Amino acid sequence: MIPDTDPAARFGALPLPACTRHLGFSLVRFDPATRELEATFDGKPEFCNPRGVVQGGFQAAMLDDVMAVALILTTEGKFVPPTLELKVSYFEPVMPGPVRARGRVLRLGRSIVFLEGDLLGDDGRLLARASATGKLLAIG
Amino acid sequence: MIPDTDPAARFGALPLPACTRHLGFSLVRFDPATRELEATFDGKPEFCNPRGVVQGGFQAAMLDDVMAVALILTTEGKFVPPTLELKVSYFEPVMPGPVRARGRVLRLGRSIVFLEGDLLGDDGRLLARASATGKLLAIG
Repeated sequence: MIPDTDPAARFGALPLPACTRHLGFSLVRFDPATRELEATFDGKPEFCNPRGVVQGGFQAAMLDDVMAVALILTTEGKFVPPTLELKVSYFEPVMPGPVRARGRVLRLGRSIVFLEGDLLGDDGRLLARASATGKLLAIG
Repeated sequence: MIPDTDPAARFGALPLPACTRHLGFSLVRFDPATRELEATFDGKPEFCNPRGVVQGGFQAAMLDDVMAVALILTTEGKFVPPTLELKVSYFEPVMPGPVRARGRVLRLGRSIVFLEGDLLGDDGRLLARASATGKLLAIG
């Protein structure tokens, strides 16, 4: 049983943002010690290119999302990270269907956050890696 | 009247890829001399984050798409550019609704293509800029 004070449990109880829901986000776990989040997304047919794999930009959307949620949970819902810069390296194609993802806070400054995200294959192979620089924006 | 040999007209006559259609892509013009494409996308509500603006990853999806089509039209449908690396700088929020975009081929090598893309406001202001490195993959 996850205690009510667990930030991930609190996040999971909130209505998901439209873009997060559209990407089929599902929280797997969040570790406050490493500030790392695991989640799955849904590689929908409409996210695919003519080669039948998830288009790189939709992979970027999943990565942007999982990194944002990592920051939200790390700051216990106090901040969101509007992205200033995002870079993605694409190692292998991402197939349609469930997509494993990880997002983590590398460095949390006073006004800026540095984030990193991965997309993983079923066997844990790294398919894509993102790094992002975000501005810390207080919620509410 | 656009002649049938015009690559943009030929592209427009083809069924759009799933991801391109999902993003609401509409071709405005393509200039073979500058290898630059103009298009519009649809910033749908489901692409938006809790701040009510198009999430950065969905902007990346639009940029990835417009750059890919620029390469397809530049090579007259012979190549697609699986993305190796994508970088996006976000200058200003992108509002829901129609989104203007430009994509261009900066350098077309034998096996690699360097691409650039912009998202623009109604007044022509630059809202986001992307650069991408793609592998040239022959179609068919």
